[in-house]
Amino acid sequence: MPITARPVARVVDELSRLPGIGPKTAQRLTYYLLRAPSEHAQALAEAIMDLKQKVVLCSQCYNITEMSPCEICSNEGRDTSRICVVEEPLDIVALERTGQYNGQYHVLHGAISPIEGIGPEELKIRELLHRLGSDRVQEVILATNPNLEGDATAMYLTRLIHPFKIEVTRLARGLPVGGDLEYADEITLSNALAGRSQL
Amino acid sequence: MPITARPVARVVDELSRLPGIGPKTAQRLTYYLLRAPSEHAQALAEAIMDLKQKVVLCSQCYNITEMSPCEICSNEGRDTSRICVVEEPLDIVALERTGQYNGQYHVLHGAISPIEGIGPEELKIRELLHRLGSDRVQEVILATNPNLEGDATAMYLTRLIHPFKIEVTRLARGLPVGGDLEYADEITLSNALAGRSQL
Repeated sequence: MPITARPVARVVDELSRLPGIGPKTAQRLTYYLLRAPSEHAQALAEAIMDLKQKVVLCSQCYNITEMSPCEICSNEGRDTSRICVVEEPLDIVALERTGQYNGQYHVLHGAISPIEGIGPEELKIRELLHRLGSDRVQEVILATNPNLEGDATAMYLTRLIHPFKIEVTRLARGLPVGGDLEYADEITLSNALAGRSQL
Repeated sequence: MPITARPVARVVDELSRLPGIGPKTAQRLTYYLLRAPSEHAQALAEAIMDLKQKVVLCSQCYNITEMSPCEICSNEGRDTSRICVVEEPLDIVALERTGQYNGQYHVLHGAISPIEGIGPEELKIRELLHRLGSDRVQEVILATNPNLEGDATAMYLTRLIHPFKIEVTRLARGLPVGGDLEYADEITLSNALAGRSQL
């Protein structure tokens, strides 16, 4: 596009590098920013600029935070006997939204995936075992994603945590709320059957 | 989300204000930026920052450009006897991509839309008439969008341009390439019939 002004083309280029944003969307967003009040574009640019500079990983749970230890780890009202292990920081946001969990977290920053070349060393697994050795942890809840990589990671962790004599649990598998039995896949339905509970 | 670090929440907020980007997408993009090399986030922020500062409207055609007059208006190889009137700068990009047009452009920056409160005064119509009065323009091609607002704008312009004794044309209406006759709407099909050409 030699017709587009260079600063415009640059924003289009940079935006199209984001996941799920194609060149057309990038173009639309760029022209939106051009028309929007300049404070909006400015605020966005500054927020992105600050993102990397003002954010660190919590030294305990490896969540993304402004100060280490993070708000959850330093909250004395929270149960320190439970650690919920998740793959990504966003998973903590989802779990916190339930309001049903008051323990600690541990972010692995990924899952074991031989295809993508992610082994246990790439994840915060050593750091988790270190916490189990020193803390008075009674239960580890494995909340990895319910897919191949997540399950492999959970199995791997179960074996590693075994010597610590700590209870290891994982999130229930079954039918999602709002789902339709007719359209449920075999594995989900098998899980739902196997995990059936008395009423 | 009190759990998300403030700089992270800020980027999520700012991104969700963009059209077509909901809170979930904004969250995904933010965490992508967090994980991406910091040059990427930096480059994006800088590009957005520059966007408003380094860009002006061309004093002739009102296209978005780095320098005024823009590349097209200052290109002596282009036909100055034809002006193609479009609603948005992006329309120029689309028309240039065809490689079939070598004339000038004029960007209205919108279309007449009483519902949105956009009248002729909000558009660059006076500026267009000014160009017609001074230039040796022989043809004005109305390339507004083929919808209610675009058609109303085209009709309005036709009436205004009439006294100048300049030929006024508009883009052909008909079946889009790759379309399916079976699924074409009545108006498109009527247009295609009315505009049929001899083979």
